[in-house]
Amino acid sequence: MRGMRFSKTFIKTLRTAPKDEAAKNGALLTRAGYIHKEMAGVYDYLPLGLRVIENIKRVIREELNKLGCEEVQMSALQNPEPWEKTGRFSDQEVDIWFKTNLSSGGELGLAPTHEEPITNMLKSYISSYKDLPLYVYQFQTKFRNELRAKSGILRGREFLMKDLYSFHTSEEDLDRFYAEVEKAYGRIFARLGIGEDTYETFASGGIFAKYSHEFQTVLPVGEDTIYYNTDKSIVLNKEVYNNEVLEDLGAAGEKFEETTAAEVGNIFKLKFKYSEPLELKYIDEENKQQTVYMGCYGIGVSRVMGVIAEKFADDKGLVWPEEVAPYKYYLVGIGENGMAEAEKFYAGREDTTLFDDRKARPGEKFADAELMGLPYRIVISDKTLAEDAAEVTDRRTGESQMVKLADLAKF
Amino acid sequence: MRGMRFSKTFIKTLRTAPKDEAAKNGALLTRAGYIHKEMAGVYDYLPLGLRVIENIKRVIREELNKLGCEEVQMSALQNPEPWEKTGRFSDQEVDIWFKTNLSSGGELGLAPTHEEPITNMLKSYISSYKDLPLYVYQFQTKFRNELRAKSGILRGREFLMKDLYSFHTSEEDLDRFYAEVEKAYGRIFARLGIGEDTYETFASGGIFAKYSHEFQTVLPVGEDTIYYNTDKSIVLNKEVYNNEVLEDLGAAGEKFEETTAAEVGNIFKLKFKYSEPLELKYIDEENKQQTVYMGCYGIGVSRVMGVIAEKFADDKGLVWPEEVAPYKYYLVGIGENGMAEAEKFYAGREDTTLFDDRKARPGEKFADAELMGLPYRIVISDKTLAEDAAEVTDRRTGESQMVKLADLAKF
Repeated sequence: MRGMRFSKTFIKTLRTAPKDEAAKNGALLTRAGYIHKEMAGVYDYLPLGLRVIENIKRVIREELNKLGCEEVQMSALQNPEPWEKTGRFSDQEVDIWFKTNLSSGGELGLAPTHEEPITNMLKSYISSYKDLPLYVYQFQTKFRNELRAKSGILRGREFLMKDLYSFHTSEEDLDRFYAEVEKAYGRIFARLGIGEDTYETFASGGIFAKYSHEFQTVLPVGEDTIYYNTDKSIVLNKEVYNNEVLEDLGAAGEKFEETTAAEVGNIFKLKFKYSEPLELKYIDEENKQQTVYMGCYGIGVSRVMGVIAEKFADDKGLVWPEEVAPYKYYLVGIGENGMAEAEKFYAGREDTTLFDDRKARPGEKFADAELMGLPYRIVISDKTLAEDAAEVTDRRTGESQMVKLADLAKF
Repeated sequence: MRGMRFSKTFIKTLRTAPKDEAAKNGALLTRAGYIHKEMAGVYDYLPLGLRVIENIKRVIREELNKLGCEEVQMSALQNPEPWEKTGRFSDQEVDIWFKTNLSSGGELGLAPTHEEPITNMLKSYISSYKDLPLYVYQFQTKFRNELRAKSGILRGREFLMKDLYSFHTSEEDLDRFYAEVEKAYGRIFARLGIGEDTYETFASGGIFAKYSHEFQTVLPVGEDTIYYNTDKSIVLNKEVYNNEVLEDLGAAGEKFEETTAAEVGNIFKLKFKYSEPLELKYIDEENKQQTVYMGCYGIGVSRVMGVIAEKFADDKGLVWPEEVAPYKYYLVGIGENGMAEAEKFYAGREDTTLFDDRKARPGEKFADAELMGLPYRIVISDKTLAEDAAEVTDRRTGESQMVKLADLAKF
């Protein structure tokens, strides 16, 4: 991590939104210098945007490491072999593959997800019940050949995901870990600032489980529709919102309301879905061969960035929660004395401060501070120095307070 | 960063090398649990391997940030447009493209390098001489459709590179920064432990520069051939080892020797090679439009890992330099008392220590310690505790010393 002087960075804010950017998150993040569009659904991450991504990764990593998860990095290029065993290399089965060809012959895929290669890889490392349970995750770029991609970084053709896979000897142990991940996801989304509006929803379960769960953040432009009861103790995805499920959940007759939301995570009891066709087995305590139980747990890292951008933005620009913000402080020095005092504050605080040291009008700096959305703007000028203080403005509430220079260090 | 208990990680060492792995680096890194092969030239990075990669990135990042370089992340999927302007989207021109198709129509490429998109992107951020110079880098996966890939992670079809691009108003300023990067590369390779055997070589320069430079590490299995004079003050790539060049460098008649080497970095004065066809312009102080001068500077991150593995390995296994090693200490507790004392050492040192807490024979632990190649093995047993000490063994030299437990903290 390092600081940023506005006069030295190549980042510039843009007055107007790019013409071809329909989504608010894409337009604002572009205007504020966080991302750059290569084509629909494909973005570059500029220094500020990369810091947001790294912050989201850090929060997720910290919470997963607490559960004993181990980080790896799988490849993007995919050998068809394991995918053919599960039937998922077929474009009829999975319709969002990007495929390419080896010059030495043979078709490859670009990973849209990693269940097959990770299950296949672990055949080299799992042989006995003593090797289980284990939990393996990665942050990796996924590729999905979406027909349309008009939602900024909410739905990308190339995007960053965290995917975690767990491996167990029994359904009970899978259930235990699944519940731990549910709690960890709660902590993660709370730290990312979207905890209050993110619900764990019932979603369709597939062959091996009655339900899976998604984590859905209420968002006007969200692509999903969810239904919640009065106290929001039961929230359902559209595909399972029917009488049969409501009865199953003991919620028949309750009143449900509808809202739009964006899926930020999902968790799924895979059981034998991949371990069976890929023959991921272990020898149990009675020396018998058994199939490994699996779970998978995703979080859309770049999508979370888009959701946060979209959700908290106001008419002046972005508003970042503190753990996600690329820097905590947007520092402005006005006039010679203000600038000198700002330099003093900046020294040693490079990691947390974006220093707007440009020779620009204060109004221009204030507008950029609001557009970029760092949690606190600190202004030091002759006026504030007359009170031996700096003016600190909370981006979210817009409230300002004078803080004595001596107290600023503690702030 | 976090610690690793051998009993809790999914990593296992393998007795024998995989059959299809001809390269020493690939075989050793696989046996020691650092990487897993998906197909020829495509590898997964397991927890230890990922830590090595992160360490190499950290060293590079620290040195580049000192020069004022800014980190970004470009996309892997490539819009053909800017590449068509430089003529490089053609498979005749660049024969290692992986190409793919958008389901909505149109061909895309997987980036083998990023000169075109980064030059194109900066058209949105550079308009005046006041915006220059600037230096932008990334760590990004590159894709190259190699006909053969039999060198482990020395030559991958999917691999990690650091690529830096610089932008200037004049040739003098490009020269100044180029010299700074030369020095930074020297520091980087020294910190990575390959400084002594890595030479800056003269290489062919292309249209706009007489020479480019490569950084070549002497290596028996290296794919390149380099030539050096007696005091190694002049080192040349094969393609420029001729009388004309030797005369040009004032080295005609000097005796040169030949050796094999692996290219770990290259630096190139691009000048107008990409800025001209892509029209990256700026307005100078006299209000005239000018073309931006460019330089580019690469380091093969995963290749460097392979070079280090290959270069320092001995008949017992890997030998990592300290800044690169996934952990500094390989901690072994023998017997109940040894184990208890080892637990004490481990507490608070998780970041730097791999704790072999398995119920395994000491011989097995020692063999794995040697195979995995961490700089120091620390053994605590009844025998060492009798001296109130631990036995510390240097992996590189094989030398052991007894260190008092009280001094171990400082060690």
